[in-house]
Amino acid sequence: MAVYTDVAFVDLELLLTRYDIGTARSFKGIAEGVENSNFILQTDHGSFILTLYEKRVSASDLPFFIALLKHLAARGIRCPVPQKARDGADWVTVNGKPAAILSWLDGLSLQHPDRAHCAAAGAALAELHEAGHDFPLVRANSLGLADWSKLATATQSRAGSVHPGLSEIVLSSLADLQSSWPHNLRRGIIHADLFPDNVLFMDGAVSGLIDFYFACNDFYAYDLAVMLNAWCFESDGTYNVANGGSLIAAYRERRTLDAAEIAALPVLAAGAALRFLLTRLNDWLDHDPSARVRPKDPREFAKRLMFHRQVRSAEEYGL
Amino acid sequence: MAVYTDVAFVDLELLLTRYDIGTARSFKGIAEGVENSNFILQTDHGSFILTLYEKRVSASDLPFFIALLKHLAARGIRCPVPQKARDGADWVTVNGKPAAILSWLDGLSLQHPDRAHCAAAGAALAELHEAGHDFPLVRANSLGLADWSKLATATQSRAGSVHPGLSEIVLSSLADLQSSWPHNLRRGIIHADLFPDNVLFMDGAVSGLIDFYFACNDFYAYDLAVMLNAWCFESDGTYNVANGGSLIAAYRERRTLDAAEIAALPVLAAGAALRFLLTRLNDWLDHDPSARVRPKDPREFAKRLMFHRQVRSAEEYGL
Repeated sequence: MAVYTDVAFVDLELLLTRYDIGTARSFKGIAEGVENSNFILQTDHGSFILTLYEKRVSASDLPFFIALLKHLAARGIRCPVPQKARDGADWVTVNGKPAAILSWLDGLSLQHPDRAHCAAAGAALAELHEAGHDFPLVRANSLGLADWSKLATATQSRAGSVHPGLSEIVLSSLADLQSSWPHNLRRGIIHADLFPDNVLFMDGAVSGLIDFYFACNDFYAYDLAVMLNAWCFESDGTYNVANGGSLIAAYRERRTLDAAEIAALPVLAAGAALRFLLTRLNDWLDHDPSARVRPKDPREFAKRLMFHRQVRSAEEYGL
Repeated sequence: MAVYTDVAFVDLELLLTRYDIGTARSFKGIAEGVENSNFILQTDHGSFILTLYEKRVSASDLPFFIALLKHLAARGIRCPVPQKARDGADWVTVNGKPAAILSWLDGLSLQHPDRAHCAAAGAALAELHEAGHDFPLVRANSLGLADWSKLATATQSRAGSVHPGLSEIVLSSLADLQSSWPHNLRRGIIHADLFPDNVLFMDGAVSGLIDFYFACNDFYAYDLAVMLNAWCFESDGTYNVANGGSLIAAYRERRTLDAAEIAALPVLAAGAALRFLLTRLNDWLDHDPSARVRPKDPREFAKRLMFHRQVRSAEEYGL
């Protein structure tokens, strides 16, 4: 959550000459985003987000993300819609960085979702999966099983400094997951990062899904496993089975989960916990003191990982 | 520029029950402010800023700042206006921090102001000084001459690590300023931090002045000296006499500068340069790696300080 690249008034004026979205009334950097620079841009035509894509989003992936947002929006998903420049371009270059102007979405994200919020978010995930089923482009998951090994190796010698025994937890979990990871689950476009931060609510209903920059092709049920990790744990680390049950039930009202997906849920949930544990651990250990973000504590995902490893069947998630 | 204290949805909902400003439509942390946490709050009544006052703004100073903004707004200065809670309170407590909801101001701040912008900003400063002349509360400048000595002492042993010879520059400048600092210039409410960041423009005209959290009672001409430092240097470090001349001339069209103020301008400008040099140096040396701000480079103000120390008369500023 930060602004990495400043955009001067003159750059903004120049940028707006390339679009049909009015003249600027205000422009402020916002404390949000996965290592992108984000700005709220208000013009006499309305509100927009300007995103400058920084190191974690590669320019070669931008056509995928932009096309995905357009595809999903066309199918009724409330997601940011890339605005076209006058020359037809979906994205441009600002201060040397790829950049896009996206539609603004009203709504607020929740830090403490309740059962009803979890149900609404689970339903939104099912709708997202349905809407993406005929999207023609493909992007591999850049934070899948093979990448976890690399992150585990990179952090192994220092993991113990974050929490005693953490290196052993990571290595044994990774070994387990490598032998138990499913191969033949149904797959398609997933969000892969649908944390409460990335779901906007208005009056109790989902008003928007944002931050699609981890979206990729992977198991649909893995997306659900990410959400169980992100939405269904209390701050004391315990799993909230009522929230989890609501989330899964609302998903299943819109999309079936088959027997293989249900059976795989504990393994997928452990994998999702390990994925966030490892990226947070890596960010924590390699934190650049001059960066404008405070790294997130990896330890809460270590707890969640331990929980999932002792889950015997998906019923324990409230299914 | 950052968000130091997160505000959860439930905290926001609770906060809004205390105000008559509508229901929340969106809420985002913004990358702005002097070590405060700032959020854009959009409701069905309009746009607002929620500010949580962090360590640099003491709660005991809040009544001064709040009353000042109301006083200035009542006299036509376009500044953020504190919104009253239903119970009449001008500020409240959010997550243990003093907090205020302020009106939103349209406009954009400029990184590269030209002559016309400098003139508009100089005129706005004069209007601010006029509007504040009958403000009854008093706040001492917490970053005045006496405080520079403390900051110089705190940074002395490490200043050379930032730039060779910097400690000597600071100490000799401080000694000079202590002997030459004026005593009897006209004084009143000054902004004390009117950098381009804190002046919003729309269609070439000033649409708002923001960030009054250094405002205090001090020499009016010192405020002008701060602006000469903040608005009138090129990125290569040279003074832009056209910009400076425009800024001063526009100020003088609205408020006279007397002979003592004009004569003191080089000393005041050197003092202002030293003030920003020292606070930036201190932030640079004591930067907390977990903080969400990147400290600003102090060296550009060392250059400006050296420039002011060789200025012989205010005419060299374009007067």
